[in-house]
Formats: sequence, structure tokens, C-alpha cells
Amino acid sequence: MNASEINKLINEISKLPGLGRKSAQRIALYLLKNREKNLLPLVKIMTDANHKIANCEDCGNIDMISPCSICQNLKRDHQMICIIEDISDLWTLERIGFYQGIYQVLGGTLSAINGIGVDELRINKLIQRIKKKNVKEIILALSTTMEGQTTSHVIVDKLESLNVEVTRLAQGIPIGGEVHYLDENTLSAAFQSRKKII
Amino acid sequence: MNASEINKLINEISKLPGLGRKSAQRIALYLLKNREKNLLPLVKIMTDANHKIANCEDCGNIDMISPCSICQNLKRDHQMICIIEDISDLWTLERIGFYQGIYQVLGGTLSAINGIGVDELRINKLIQRIKKKNVKEIILALSTTMEGQTTSHVIVDKLESLNVEVTRLAQGIPIGGEVHYLDENTLSAAFQSRKKII
Repeated sequence: MNASEINKLINEISKLPGLGRKSAQRIALYLLKNREKNLLPLVKIMTDANHKIANCEDCGNIDMISPCSICQNLKRDHQMICIIEDISDLWTLERIGFYQGIYQVLGGTLSAINGIGVDELRINKLIQRIKKKNVKEIILALSTTMEGQTTSHVIVDKLESLNVEVTRLAQGIPIGGEVHYLDENTLSAAFQSRKKII
Repeated sequence: MNASEINKLINEISKLPGLGRKSAQRIALYLLKNREKNLLPLVKIMTDANHKIANCEDCGNIDMISPCSICQNLKRDHQMICIIEDISDLWTLERIGFYQGIYQVLGGTLSAINGIGVDELRINKLIQRIKKKNVKEIILALSTTMEGQTTSHVIVDKLESLNVEVTRLAQGIPIGGEVHYLDENTLSAAFQSRKKII
């Protein structure tokens, strides 16, 4: 019984990640009930974003300039590249703020099922950057899932001949984690990587 | 560290109902990572919706015509008006499909705190409609919250002199409800309205 434009809007909104049909209906109503205040500003900022935002040709970040403001920032350590899966990981690290190197955003993990191979993940771009610039350390900050670990292994293989130090994030008990809630794999990794205190 | 246009987009998305900053970031990234496929179709349908969708001058529904397709549908029973709080209630009733009368969408409930009075709720419009057309029954389908019930009472007061039958939805145990999970008020209402079987 909904008018077709309303249905189209609900359909398009329900494609957004994390939203089901119910939430999409709620959002569509919110937008349509006060178009001046809710719908039009969103359309405007989306249109602006589409015109102004660029993908960084070097690291894969999104920004208003390419290379992005991180890759162009000479105060950052360009000899250290942190490999991450997604731009959201970059946002998380930048929000915390301790990391001062630059990034390489893979844009996912290797996945035979989803047809994502080495060529899809900017791994060749990474190798080019290491060869061209004087990169000293590659930090692998990928998920500790099966896909993330497979991707890490493949990258390590590709980098072996390049005379660059490759590190990965420490694995163990998360801060604030309770031992009796931890899964077997985390506990086992934490035991294997235990550190001498005294 | 995010570019300002990205931040503006995240801010605007996080105003949508039910979305926090994290979900807004996720949606913004989804839109920006594939603008051709994700961002532009949404901008297009929002712009179309803004041009094509109208508020029904009679009942407050949104549709592509005004009066809306329900108010214009001569197969529906125009002597029966169901009073609802929001367009989402109309969508729910239309999805189920048993109701064949027309609607009056109040657009909320009376709320002194939020400054919503009789004038904000299309109650005068309802009275006009009842006077102008030969309306026989008004069905109050408002929430059984304090605000919904207060609003019902005020509407009943205003309709008393109008020679129209006013009914409200039955209150009791929801279908599929287990008695030992029910709250005191529902159980008490169900007892008071108990029906003779034999």
C-alpha cells in the first residue's frame, strides 16, 4: 500500500549495513516527515561528499586529497607502514592516536569464496611502495581470524625477499579480559607468548 | 583525522533514528567505498522522493498524491476513521490488511513536556472531517502508554457532542502471550474485560 517512491526509498535504505526492513522504514519515515530538516541536509552532504572525497592513490584511505593527508604528512614516520584490512581500522588507530607511521589499507582479506585474490588487495602496491621508499618496518595489524591470518601469511611470503622488518600485533589476553571467559585459542596463544617478569 | 566532508556525513547519518556513531561510520564507509553503486542511487531516490512525495491534506499520511490513495479510494469505508499516532501504525495496519476504513494520523501524542498540544495533532482536522462527512465510527488505536491514553481521553472529550460512535482497541493478553510473563496492568485489564464463554 506504500507509494512506490516510498518503497524504493525503504529498499535502498535497507541495503545499508546493519539495517533491516524495520529500521529502514523508521529512517524513511523520519526523513519524509520533515524533509526540509532531515532529508535535504543529508542529500546535500552526500552530494558534497561524492564530489569532494577521493581515494588515496598510495594507501587506499579516503580523504579530500590524494595522496591523503596522512601520506602527505611529513611529520609522520614514512619508514613504518601498518597493514590494515579496512579504512575503519585506520579510523580506530587514528582515534587512539599513538601510531605515527603511515598505512596500507588492503580493502579486505584474501578469500577464495568471495573471489578476493592478491590483485584485489593492493598487495602489489604495497611491494612497490616498499621498493620505492626506504621502508624499514611493516606492521601486520590484520584480524586474528582464519582469513586475516591467511592474508598475513601470504604478505609475509611476498615480503621475505625485500629486506624489510615485518612484525605482527601481539596476541594474548585482551586488557580487562577475564581468564575464565577466554576461548581456547586465545588462552593457548597467551601461554605460548608468555613474558618473563622476574 | 577524518576529512571534514567525511565527518559531516557521519554526523548527518548518526542523526537518523536508531543509529549511533559506530553504525553511522560503518554506513558512511559503505557509501564512500563504492559511490557509484551505493551512494549515488541513494541520493537519487532521496531526491526523487523529495520531489514526488506529498503529505495527505486530509489524513496526514504520506503518498505521491494528496489526498492520499487511501482517502481517495472509494472502495474503502469512509464512515469509519481509525485514529493512529504515526504513519508507521498506518503501514502496519495496511500490511495486515483487515482494516477497510480510512485513517487520521495524529502525528504523535499529547505531551506537555515536548510542547505537543491539541493544535499540533490534527485533532481539529479530525473534528472538521467528522462534521463534513457522514462519519459513523471513530476507532481509537493509540498506544496504551500514559501519553497515548491521555490523548485518547482528550479526543473522546472533544467528540462527545458530535453524535459519532467512538471505540477503542480491546486491551488484554496478547495472542501468544504467557500469563506468568504479563505485567500487572495488562493482567488487571484482561480480568476486568473478561468475556463470558458459556
